[in-house]
Amino acid sequence: MSGFFISVEGGDGSGKSTQLENIKGFLKENNIEFIFTREPGGTEISEKIRSIILDPNNTEMADITEALLYAASRAQHVAEKIKPALDSGKTVVCDRFVDSSIVYQGYGRGLGDVVKAINAPAVNGYMPHITFFLDISPEDAMPRIKSRNLDRLEMGGMELHKKIYEGYKKLIAEDNTGRIVSIDANRSPEEIWQDIKMVLEEKCL
Amino acid sequence: MSGFFISVEGGDGSGKSTQLENIKGFLKENNIEFIFTREPGGTEISEKIRSIILDPNNTEMADITEALLYAASRAQHVAEKIKPALDSGKTVVCDRFVDSSIVYQGYGRGLGDVVKAINAPAVNGYMPHITFFLDISPEDAMPRIKSRNLDRLEMGGMELHKKIYEGYKKLIAEDNTGRIVSIDANRSPEEIWQDIKMVLEEKCL
Repeated sequence: MSGFFISVEGGDGSGKSTQLENIKGFLKENNIEFIFTREPGGTEISEKIRSIILDPNNTEMADITEALLYAASRAQHVAEKIKPALDSGKTVVCDRFVDSSIVYQGYGRGLGDVVKAINAPAVNGYMPHITFFLDISPEDAMPRIKSRNLDRLEMGGMELHKKIYEGYKKLIAEDNTGRIVSIDANRSPEEIWQDIKMVLEEKCL
Repeated sequence: MSGFFISVEGGDGSGKSTQLENIKGFLKENNIEFIFTREPGGTEISEKIRSIILDPNNTEMADITEALLYAASRAQHVAEKIKPALDSGKTVVCDRFVDSSIVYQGYGRGLGDVVKAINAPAVNGYMPHITFFLDISPEDAMPRIKSRNLDRLEMGGMELHKKIYEGYKKLIAEDNTGRIVSIDANRSPEEIWQDIKMVLEEKCL
């Protein structure tokens, strides 16, 4: 892959959407050709899979089913959208990627390393060059998400959010490649953006 | 698991439906409590996943996406239906199981051993005690399926059917547990049934 691959991770209420807009704006200003995409979803087939995962009626869904559906959605997303873009030299900005699965299903649902195993063929070697983790504790983030409509994932409650947060922390501790950049997200959007921008200026320009 | 688990495998046109009816009739006559189920599908969530796999509009689907969707469908099927039935001592009869994935995706689509890896957590140790493989070459089977409506899978053509048939043969050659019983299916339904019945009488009564 000749293009540059950026993913952004963060729990609910971490201000991810705002920073994704900032990243897109930065790339436009600097005339860097890019595509923006998100997980779960990103392609028509992935969206169909996503709709099964997020359907609040599917309360019987086993944790391993959910993890395999996320992997399937990702496999399609990589094959149909991310791989072609990167292979043609474009920058790719992705709202969540495989780290979300490792953390939500691996740590949050307690499935462990099996999540990495089933995602390896889905990712097919196309890992982000850089991943911004917007670091905010669930306690600090919770007031920000209270007002939203809650889908099946967000109904998990504070205990799940804490597990997920700890999962991200473990993932970052285990990352010996420097891929994941942790950003203190318990600050103003402008302060958060300055940190991200500094890294982008170094890596993308 | 305290129940007995039977699966039936065979390419398109192998007479699988007829023999499944025979097996169900045999279990009923002998007052053996059983459930009948099928793959892909078997639960409401699995059927939703199946509908994505079989939708002829999803021509862009990557092979690895398809394999992960089959694994997801199977995971739900095992967790919600097969595991509870076996755990409660019931016999389970399943139209296709993990062997279909190993053969169709592993050999047919050329994905190889990755199919076994992604299915291991889906099956979760609940492997059939006995698997009947209805053995008929694609050349002999083809006239039997010509008249049907062809879904996305059957559109693969003769070359794919040959690969799948060879895949089953390899799988049986590698099976050192005696789980898979190969039945010559290029005969009359009654002759095929006599062979299956003999095995069932030995294993189930």
